Amino acid sequence: MIEEEVLKIIKPTEEDKKGIEKVLEIIRERLNKLDFEVEGSFRKGTWLRQDTDIDVFVFYPKDVGKEYLERNALNDIINRIKDLDYTLAYAEHPYVIVNINNVEVDIVPALRVESGDKAITAVDRTPFHTKYVTSHLDERGKDEVRLLKRFMKGIGVYGAELKVQGFSGYATELLIIYYGNFRKVLEEASKWKHPIKIELTKPMKIFSEPLIIPDPVDPKRNVTAAVSLKNIATFSIAAKYYLKNPSIEFFFPSKKVEEKVKGDVLILRLNLDEKSSEDIVWGQIKRSVNKIERALKQYGFRVIDVQAWGDTNNITIAVQLESKNIGQYYLNIGPQYYSQTIEDFIQKNDNIWVGEDGRLYSIKERKEYDAETIAKKNIVLKVKYNIESYWLQNTEDQQIMKFLRKTPTWLK
Amino acid sequence: MIEEEVLKIIKPTEEDKKGIEKVLEIIRERLNKLDFEVEGSFRKGTWLRQDTDIDVFVFYPKDVGKEYLERNALNDIINRIKDLDYTLAYAEHPYVIVNINNVEVDIVPALRVESGDKAITAVDRTPFHTKYVTSHLDERGKDEVRLLKRFMKGIGVYGAELKVQGFSGYATELLIIYYGNFRKVLEEASKWKHPIKIELTKPMKIFSEPLIIPDPVDPKRNVTAAVSLKNIATFSIAAKYYLKNPSIEFFFPSKKVEEKVKGDVLILRLNLDEKSSEDIVWGQIKRSVNKIERALKQYGFRVIDVQAWGDTNNITIAVQLESKNIGQYYLNIGPQYYSQTIEDFIQKNDNIWVGEDGRLYSIKERKEYDAETIAKKNIVLKVKYNIESYWLQNTEDQQIMKFLRKTPTWLK
Repeated sequence: MIEEEVLKIIKPTEEDKKGIEKVLEIIRERLNKLDFEVEGSFRKGTWLRQDTDIDVFVFYPKDVGKEYLERNALNDIINRIKDLDYTLAYAEHPYVIVNINNVEVDIVPALRVESGDKAITAVDRTPFHTKYVTSHLDERGKDEVRLLKRFMKGIGVYGAELKVQGFSGYATELLIIYYGNFRKVLEEASKWKHPIKIELTKPMKIFSEPLIIPDPVDPKRNVTAAVSLKNIATFSIAAKYYLKNPSIEFFFPSKKVEEKVKGDVLILRLNLDEKSSEDIVWGQIKRSVNKIERALKQYGFRVIDVQAWGDTNNITIAVQLESKNIGQYYLNIGPQYYSQTIEDFIQKNDNIWVGEDGRLYSIKERKEYDAETIAKKNIVLKVKYNIESYWLQNTEDQQIMKFLRKTPTWLK
Repeated sequence: MIEEEVLKIIKPTEEDKKGIEKVLEIIRERLNKLDFEVEGSFRKGTWLRQDTDIDVFVFYPKDVGKEYLERNALNDIINRIKDLDYTLAYAEHPYVIVNINNVEVDIVPALRVESGDKAITAVDRTPFHTKYVTSHLDERGKDEVRLLKRFMKGIGVYGAELKVQGFSGYATELLIIYYGNFRKVLEEASKWKHPIKIELTKPMKIFSEPLIIPDPVDPKRNVTAAVSLKNIATFSIAAKYYLKNPSIEFFFPSKKVEEKVKGDVLILRLNLDEKSSEDIVWGQIKRSVNKIERALKQYGFRVIDVQAWGDTNNITIAVQLESKNIGQYYLNIGPQYYSQTIEDFIQKNDNIWVGEDGRLYSIKERKEYDAETIAKKNIVLKVKYNIESYWLQNTEDQQIMKFLRKTPTWLK
């Protein structure tokens, strides 16, 4: 069975666990006397081997407020670990990342609230998620979560970050709790048609997103609010195809791909000067991708596909057009001969004629007909960056090959 | 006054009239004892100087039928003029063209019917048209018709033949009879919005054409049924512009035009082997122009304009595209992820991906992406022809220059 094979790879051993416990011992000592708890997939037992961060939350009374967390609490934590290898990171508010023996530990200050629906910052809900999941998943259930996570990683729909807009770990856990096991989740997902409602609890709000999983610990929140329709659709199709023809390729796509350049492909290589938060950079990259596509279409190009990939500093945007030569001039459709506006049209236009339909037509010059210029103009990054751009001739780059091939290897 | 100047040029002198009368004397002798009459603009006194054919109709009792006209009557006429310079021509049925001193005389066999609405062939109505016009137009009215004819010739909307799809001589006469004079026709035409109804008599049928002038001698027929909307619109616009700013340019467009090539312009030069009737050839040319435009659009080209010009043997079709490079591949939009048809789509397509909207997309190869091939394939001529085609670089050809400029010189 494929799934057993996969579990052998992804299920942590006792040794893996001990390694992480050893790291945690160091952190526990440092946070002595603080109100802290281990959260996240390690605590819930749904983590993947060699593929996890450890989340340690430090709680403060809710009355201290957000600003206390961001200054005093953070400073206290930093003082306790400053001799270790650490960096500062930002989500809704700042937290500390400590690296010990190549294990990443996120130390997150949070407010202690009475229940999930009383959360003041997004992270305050986390201990309630932990409680909900640990009390609803048995040992087999944890492995089912692991399979689902790895499957979603394999097909590229795992990760709540803006860059992915995929499923969070918590979402995979809720799916397993709701449907029972990995196979059952796939069976149901293969039949999805949005809006999809998965109600472990009654929603306390009307949600408009395509996939709706009201949070059992805070039912006015949709756990999968940020999952894109593209990822929902991809997951549904992958589920259908996996059930028909299970293969390790879904979990660990490995095939090297090759494809020729079809149409005209513009490659934009961006190099960001400053280090910014991933979600901030990718928010801007996603906006840029949309703007580039919209602008090119507006200028008359037929766009096949625009995609972006990369990390937080080196980003590639690929723009695929049916043709980069759309011509300098375009047909301009004017008013009917009996319209009040014909004199204005005739005055403002050149190359005017009357069509068989009684309308006036003219030829107009495009304001811009160089796709490269249009694409570059529509990159909206708030940090400084260098850009290198070229029309693709041929390539060895596997990422570009994937962009050209498009079809996922697990599909065909 | 412009119009007086124009009349000086177009109004025949006594000498012109005598010249034609001399030609007619020869024809009258030849048709001795037949029931013949002079019809057409010469008879009606609405002909233009150095710009007329003479129509002579030979009438037979209506009981002899169409076939008698086409054989016996025609042969009799030919026998009488066979020593002169003559050719055979075809409209609804055959007639004889005799050339005497560079004056063209059309000798047309027709059936003698009691009234216009009893016409068996289209030409049987003609003597009733002649009677109607001569009894409704005075001398000044005839000059007004001449002005209107010359104006329509100048702007290219005169001529009932399929090649032009413009106004017939009879239509111009009815317009003057209805509105009173040339200026009044223009004033009204400048305000036209189709459907336009000009009722010298109550229509005996519901007409669907944009311009409706029920024939006073046969009210179930629309005199302007064959006038294209393009010509109606052109006439309306020209009327409006002439009234604002009268100029000889409307009557005798003379300006040499120049224009650069905008977009990609394909020139197709057709040379027809056989001599065919103009209306038959131009029916096929018009169909070809439409087919070329439709096919190019269907294959994904953005068509600016397709036009044809020439005579009955040498015809030019010009095809203007925004760009001839539309690329070998195109974006193919597939079904939503939840559709029954996705498996079929995935099986039949390559380069498949899921879009942000949850749809499947793929890249497809165009069956044809060479505009020249598509244009040539869509020429539907039933006679043999040679074709020469090329992408326009630059030209001295005034017809091509006019095609490139488009804007009529009288407009701007």
